Amino acid sequence: MVQLYGDERIDFLLAKENMRIIQSPSVFAFSLDAVLLADFTYVPKTRGKILDLCTGNGVVPLFLSTRSKVPITGVEIQERLYDMALRNIELNGLKDQLKIIHGDLKEMPAYYGNDKFDLVTCNPPYFPTPKADEQNLNQHLAIARHEIHCSLEEVIDSCSRLAKSGGKVSMVHRPERLVEIIQLFNKYKLEPKRMRLVYPKEGKEANILLIEGVRDGKPGLKILPPLYALTKEDEYTAELKEILYGE
Amino acid sequence: MVQLYGDERIDFLLAKENMRIIQSPSVFAFSLDAVLLADFTYVPKTRGKILDLCTGNGVVPLFLSTRSKVPITGVEIQERLYDMALRNIELNGLKDQLKIIHGDLKEMPAYYGNDKFDLVTCNPPYFPTPKADEQNLNQHLAIARHEIHCSLEEVIDSCSRLAKSGGKVSMVHRPERLVEIIQLFNKYKLEPKRMRLVYPKEGKEANILLIEGVRDGKPGLKILPPLYALTKEDEYTAELKEILYGE
Repeated sequence: MVQLYGDERIDFLLAKENMRIIQSPSVFAFSLDAVLLADFTYVPKTRGKILDLCTGNGVVPLFLSTRSKVPITGVEIQERLYDMALRNIELNGLKDQLKIIHGDLKEMPAYYGNDKFDLVTCNPPYFPTPKADEQNLNQHLAIARHEIHCSLEEVIDSCSRLAKSGGKVSMVHRPERLVEIIQLFNKYKLEPKRMRLVYPKEGKEANILLIEGVRDGKPGLKILPPLYALTKEDEYTAELKEILYGE
Repeated sequence: MVQLYGDERIDFLLAKENMRIIQSPSVFAFSLDAVLLADFTYVPKTRGKILDLCTGNGVVPLFLSTRSKVPITGVEIQERLYDMALRNIELNGLKDQLKIIHGDLKEMPAYYGNDKFDLVTCNPPYFPTPKADEQNLNQHLAIARHEIHCSLEEVIDSCSRLAKSGGKVSMVHRPERLVEIIQLFNKYKLEPKRMRLVYPKEGKEANILLIEGVRDGKPGLKILPPLYALTKEDEYTAELKEILYGE
């Protein structure tokens, strides 16, 4: 068994796959957004390699390992989360496929140089950095939620430089920042090709944006069917259950 | 009664309002897209004024007259359609509120000068101009569908110059051109604020894009609930019937 620290606990990630994940309410718990990203994104199945930036406790690499056999590397800047991600790989016996780097995503393009990826995924912080006194007092959560260590532009720039020409970049973010994301994708030579919107329930505005671009791709966006998270009775929809539990 | 020419016929537009519209299969028949635009857009209710570019037979102004009491002007470049739009105004007794200009939308900013609009709507041609031998042989339909007289950039430039600062521009287009539309909105100082996607039915990709920008507005896009056109049984959904027939 792996070691647990503080308020960490082991949750099921994909019940059908018997995949488990260490989380901590005070440090990092994976969000629906990360799982939706891992479900939405294109994956190279048997050739190539994948990089996941802002990997947190490694939820996206863990999930992607059920969809692809290629090597997957996660990058996490917070040592506490990097350590949690390492233990998650061990817990699930995925050392042969998954690797975690403790580092800053902005340094990855230089680190990898011309050694580029078929797919780069990212679930970045969603919110511009607030004034110090408005930030989450818990620094672990603040770094995951606010653009403290990386702005959206730095994230997209890094994603683009890490993707092969013709490679994909998939990201989850908030719909209110779609305009900025499209402008930055354009600036960094990522052509948006697939988009999906997630709505909390029928009749509500979208609250999660999934978008995938192709490095040096040709124009032509497809907007996939919408996904609803909850039924009118506030239960997970059948489609979301399928994504979350594989059932 | 008004005069009908060739294969023109009178159809119901909004049954509940007893509104009728002259159309012609060989020259111009309004599309679902125009009705969805007229339903989607913000309207100034009692003050201000509205301009509808690419008005065709006047379907958007006719529809908007049921939502707003302000003056509405349509602009149409094809004389045959301009004439049809005039007769549609007469047919529905809307001469006091609706007016049609026979002209080129690209000339409207100079024509109106500093006399700007609270709302500019537009259902422009969707397709880049093909080679002459691939164009629709029917020139009336070709002009309505292809960017023969106006490119998307010219349309958005004109819309922007005709809107007041703080005024709205609403447009219907194809989702595959969303990236280009957002870039051009940005270039011409229109901030996208509301967007809605229309899907032919559950499980299909979006095929109609509704988008509204504010001239000189602040960032912050809302993505409204999706609209499905057809049920699984290929009948109009209740929501679409409500829009089309007011029932």
